[in-house]
Amino acid sequence: MTSPLPTGAGAASRRWASPVLYLVGVVLLATSAMMCLPLAADLYYSNADWKAFAMSAVASALLGGFLVLVNRGGLQAGLTVRQAFLLTPASWLGVAAVSAAPFWLSDFGSVSRSLPDAIFEAVSGITTTGATVLSDLDSAPPGLLLWRALLQWMGGIGIIATAIAILPALGIGGMQLFRTESSDRSDKAMPRIRQIAATLGLVYVGLTATAFAVYTLLGMTPFDALAHALTSVATGGFSTSDASFGNWEANGIQWFGALFMLAGSVPFVLYVRLIAGDRRALWDRQVRTLLLFVCLTVLALGSWLAMSGVYGIEEAYRQAAFNVVSVVTTTGYATTDYQLWGNVAVGLFFGLTFIGGCTGSTSGGIKIFRFEVMAVMLREHFQRLIHPRGVFPRTYAGRPLGDDVVSSVVAFVSVFFLSYAVLTIALMAMGLDFLTSASGAATALSNVGPGLGDTIGPAGTFEPLPGMAKWLLSFGMLLGRLELFTLLVLFIPRFWRS
Amino acid sequence: MTSPLPTGAGAASRRWASPVLYLVGVVLLATSAMMCLPLAADLYYSNADWKAFAMSAVASALLGGFLVLVNRGGLQAGLTVRQAFLLTPASWLGVAAVSAAPFWLSDFGSVSRSLPDAIFEAVSGITTTGATVLSDLDSAPPGLLLWRALLQWMGGIGIIATAIAILPALGIGGMQLFRTESSDRSDKAMPRIRQIAATLGLVYVGLTATAFAVYTLLGMTPFDALAHALTSVATGGFSTSDASFGNWEANGIQWFGALFMLAGSVPFVLYVRLIAGDRRALWDRQVRTLLLFVCLTVLALGSWLAMSGVYGIEEAYRQAAFNVVSVVTTTGYATTDYQLWGNVAVGLFFGLTFIGGCTGSTSGGIKIFRFEVMAVMLREHFQRLIHPRGVFPRTYAGRPLGDDVVSSVVAFVSVFFLSYAVLTIALMAMGLDFLTSASGAATALSNVGPGLGDTIGPAGTFEPLPGMAKWLLSFGMLLGRLELFTLLVLFIPRFWRS
Repeated sequence: MTSPLPTGAGAASRRWASPVLYLVGVVLLATSAMMCLPLAADLYYSNADWKAFAMSAVASALLGGFLVLVNRGGLQAGLTVRQAFLLTPASWLGVAAVSAAPFWLSDFGSVSRSLPDAIFEAVSGITTTGATVLSDLDSAPPGLLLWRALLQWMGGIGIIATAIAILPALGIGGMQLFRTESSDRSDKAMPRIRQIAATLGLVYVGLTATAFAVYTLLGMTPFDALAHALTSVATGGFSTSDASFGNWEANGIQWFGALFMLAGSVPFVLYVRLIAGDRRALWDRQVRTLLLFVCLTVLALGSWLAMSGVYGIEEAYRQAAFNVVSVVTTTGYATTDYQLWGNVAVGLFFGLTFIGGCTGSTSGGIKIFRFEVMAVMLREHFQRLIHPRGVFPRTYAGRPLGDDVVSSVVAFVSVFFLSYAVLTIALMAMGLDFLTSASGAATALSNVGPGLGDTIGPAGTFEPLPGMAKWLLSFGMLLGRLELFTLLVLFIPRFWRS
Repeated sequence: MTSPLPTGAGAASRRWASPVLYLVGVVLLATSAMMCLPLAADLYYSNADWKAFAMSAVASALLGGFLVLVNRGGLQAGLTVRQAFLLTPASWLGVAAVSAAPFWLSDFGSVSRSLPDAIFEAVSGITTTGATVLSDLDSAPPGLLLWRALLQWMGGIGIIATAIAILPALGIGGMQLFRTESSDRSDKAMPRIRQIAATLGLVYVGLTATAFAVYTLLGMTPFDALAHALTSVATGGFSTSDASFGNWEANGIQWFGALFMLAGSVPFVLYVRLIAGDRRALWDRQVRTLLLFVCLTVLALGSWLAMSGVYGIEEAYRQAAFNVVSVVTTTGYATTDYQLWGNVAVGLFFGLTFIGGCTGSTSGGIKIFRFEVMAVMLREHFQRLIHPRGVFPRTYAGRPLGDDVVSSVVAFVSVFFLSYAVLTIALMAMGLDFLTSASGAATALSNVGPGLGDTIGPAGTFEPLPGMAKWLLSFGMLLGRLELFTLLVLFIPRFWRS
């Protein structure tokens, strides 16, 4: 008499998860299709790794197809809040798992037949982090290099879609502030969500194509240009050379690299608005603050480098601009080991690791608008301390700033630093030194890429770390990419009840 | 025709500052009186430094007497909010200035004739931090050692008074939550503020006397026992030996040291309530959380030390207990260089630096109740994410937790970490390495004492740091001790207007 109940509950929870699994299946099918590109590249260049991609593509297609077939029709009712919560981590984890397969099956470097390394590289890819366990990239097989770049590119458009379609509705990290921008149906220029999505896709492809053209014109081979175009716009940071972007220096190409990283860290809805005819769209509060911050930092660092005589004038500002933009936009390319500039630079780049670009972009980190909301909150607090009975309305970019947004932002920043502290101490418990642990935790959570110190700094890789540290950092990258809460709610028992 | 206006404004602002300056004068007179104790000690032990104390005492008395005489009668109307804001930093800065004089005038160690060193040592004293620029303490003149201990003891009772009488009224860092405890006039047992103050003083003196008796019985010389009693109850951490409390090991004295540090980190109003007959007074929410946290940490660290075979069972738990309690209560004694226990220990003690004891005690740091309020806030946020339309009342220790308290706590924690980041980067800009900068900034802001790394770690001193770093750290110690906002509002132009 007791057996029907569990079965019934099981069926109910299967039904509950069904639309989520259906969508995960769709994402896996798309991932499988993407694997055909590195497969083709390896076939073209006669590299034996094509088999790794073939096997992975078939496996992903089978898994994705199975999920789609079994759960078809489940999506008719739309998603509930809890289903939307589950969808985000489920898709990312699903893609991470299948996209690690080609690394594991390949014959190149430390990822070959190493689960922590293959997962680390895959997660670093789809989270657009750019931390790597691979060295000797300059002689790596083209399929593998292309796959790393494609992973970041997919991760980039994935996070834009998530940040626009899902996070605001869930009220995560203050992103309800941007709810109207995507759900406003009275906007005549862009009446339908599908049209916005199509335009977003076009913008993303268009920016990538532009970067590809520019990089090719300025001296990269078409292959390198494609890989760097994919990872610039995605603010990912995987390169095809151990020297990263430092391998290409002529024709001012690094200035353009900085430009495309910045282009990827701007809210992508602004491009959609720009195309729809709003010529002042990019004159956005977040964008202005980001540019102002970057300009001031570059000016200070560049002047200091120029005055200290390390570089000539142009190179000083170029090195400062490229590397500051790379870290602030959470891309993670480097043109040089900026740690050699001294302890000031180490401190500066450590601090920059937390900043991040704009919401609704491919950037990670805490992000500009959260710092702005915190500043508004603190400003009001100081005013109220001095005038306890005064009334100080909070506004952001001309709109009133509600308590819910402020408390969401505060919760986000608190959980960010809490996760950061726990991750740092966990890494130290693996025996890593303080700088490696502190900067490794920061670069993972912010999806930047390189850490600081001799091992994981801009001139090193994450390969020498113990396997457990790689698992921890992979978790950290996912946690940061999924804006903490979409992943953390899964650990709350109440989420799974009723 | 324009000259009368500035004069009038000058007179008005003199009148405005008058009660504040009067009280600062009183504090300076008390400081001058205190200087007579080390003066007597140096005379008794025939040490030439008695002249340094004599000159400093006379100078402090003259300055304090002048301020009292010129501003007498200014206090009749009581203090406004702005005057209360000004009083706290003004008294601390005043005491720091005059109490640095004996160090500067003395002939011992690096403080002699060095302004940054003398100020650093004095500020570290009155803020009950315990970071020192002095080594060779075991052969230091008794007057200087006594003066260091007395400074911490004065700083301890000073911060208790400030935390009870001033900060709650100003709404600083969520301390309005404790407003009723000191301003509740319906309490029959303790009807008047003066009586509370007198009982507080008795408790403070009583605890110190008990510590003195216990330390003497367990083997310290009366002088060492006095110095350590003064700095234990004040959770200060200055010692009379370079080996700190590690110099005394027999008779379980270190267990009692831990006990007195904990006694100093409990809200002192609870002792007053206990004396007034409330036998459950110490069964307070903050105290329970503090003890639970300390016990769990000691248990984990002690077991790890015992299992790794570094120490025998008793010594493992004793070393763990003493040093964890020392850092969590922000005292800053050490019994050994715990950095030698490995990177885990470095990470753990770095994290512990931020915790702090209870509000209304002599402890610094972020403090237990702020972590609890943050936890309540985050818990509510997670609940609301899962059930967006649910109602989740916030309570703390059975009382409703208002928005004003939560936002004050959030503002405090945000400004704490913001100051921490700025201070760390500023120290790196002085050329200090990452661990020294990061732990130095933390230990200063939290008023703990030792940092981490070879230079400022538990086995080192702050003496080798550049002068500018000492000024920065002195500012950091004051900032942390004055709960950030009482010092920071002075930098806001609006504060000085009207």
